[in-house]
Amino acid sequence: MEKLPEITVNRLSIYRRYVKSLLKKGKLLVTSEKLGKKMHFKPSQIRRDLSYVGQFGERGKGYNVKKLSQGLDKTLGLDRKWQVALVGAGNLGRALSAYPGFRQHGFKISVIFDNSPTKIGKTWLGVEIRDIKQMPKVIKEKKIKIAIIAVPYFSAQQAADILMRSGVKAILNFAPYKLAVPEGLKLKNIDLSTELQSLSCFLTK
Amino acid sequence: MEKLPEITVNRLSIYRRYVKSLLKKGKLLVTSEKLGKKMHFKPSQIRRDLSYVGQFGERGKGYNVKKLSQGLDKTLGLDRKWQVALVGAGNLGRALSAYPGFRQHGFKISVIFDNSPTKIGKTWLGVEIRDIKQMPKVIKEKKIKIAIIAVPYFSAQQAADILMRSGVKAILNFAPYKLAVPEGLKLKNIDLSTELQSLSCFLTK
Repeated sequence: MEKLPEITVNRLSIYRRYVKSLLKKGKLLVTSEKLGKKMHFKPSQIRRDLSYVGQFGERGKGYNVKKLSQGLDKTLGLDRKWQVALVGAGNLGRALSAYPGFRQHGFKISVIFDNSPTKIGKTWLGVEIRDIKQMPKVIKEKKIKIAIIAVPYFSAQQAADILMRSGVKAILNFAPYKLAVPEGLKLKNIDLSTELQSLSCFLTK
Repeated sequence: MEKLPEITVNRLSIYRRYVKSLLKKGKLLVTSEKLGKKMHFKPSQIRRDLSYVGQFGERGKGYNVKKLSQGLDKTLGLDRKWQVALVGAGNLGRALSAYPGFRQHGFKISVIFDNSPTKIGKTWLGVEIRDIKQMPKVIKEKKIKIAIIAVPYFSAQQAADILMRSGVKAILNFAPYKLAVPEGLKLKNIDLSTELQSLSCFLTK
């Protein structure tokens, strides 16, 4: 499959959510016009994006909802379950470990790592907090490919380095630090404070 | 001041964090080369970005750390405190209300709104959860300009509409829904599940 642009992936993810709700309601067909109206995208944009996913249109009738839903799952890698490692058991880590949206989409935080003796050995929602020193061993054993970094900025690069050496191929980084990562590793950064700063910057002008 | 591109604001925010750490250590001057090396940006990029902030360079010596820090604060609107309204007292709302990074950067969640009778009247970390029906009144009284939406997707547009009518000018939206907002309102979207989906999509290829 050709490489999908990030922005297309984001739109597919939005389409998928709506298509799932149609499926739940028992709808069999949906047109790109209907999808566009509901989600504030141009129908032409939706048709172009969905052409990446497969051919689910029935001429003059619209898309087959069930097949479209399955196609979106497959394209987004959501036709399977993903184990996720969470590094950092601070406030943000706790928030993320309790976030219901991950599991709803097939992502299960199956292990948490921290370096604090007061946290190691504890259990959050059934998931054990392990010593960060065991990260390579545990990640290899569990064959985990996706990790979330939620440590302070000064520990982020070290955490990323260990994750990469352990076989992790995709990282969602919440630490406010520009990680150096090799080609072939997928990195996404979310900095919650920076997001608010772009709002305050806007209001200041 | 001219309108700064989003990506520049994001970089300024990263620079600011590092400059603050230099200030704490008592450093007086820093060169763009040093900044670049520490943060993995090209010095030329840093010089260009910082030219938006002001003139803090001392020829042949580098930037004056203290003045640079103040300039970054001012440009990013962080030389003052911002009151923030949080809409949605679910799991994500609770996580966000406990997130220490907001307050560290001058953002204080000063009121939380929800429509659940079991939550209204409760207090989270000293902040009262109010009935969503009181949103216009409370937001106008407190003159709040920034809001965070953390409600389910099907309630997001309604929440945004009420916020806008109440005088909010900037919204950070965590609901997985493409909000329709007028020109002149600043909207930032964060969809945590979508971020993970772009990782799983990458791993699927």
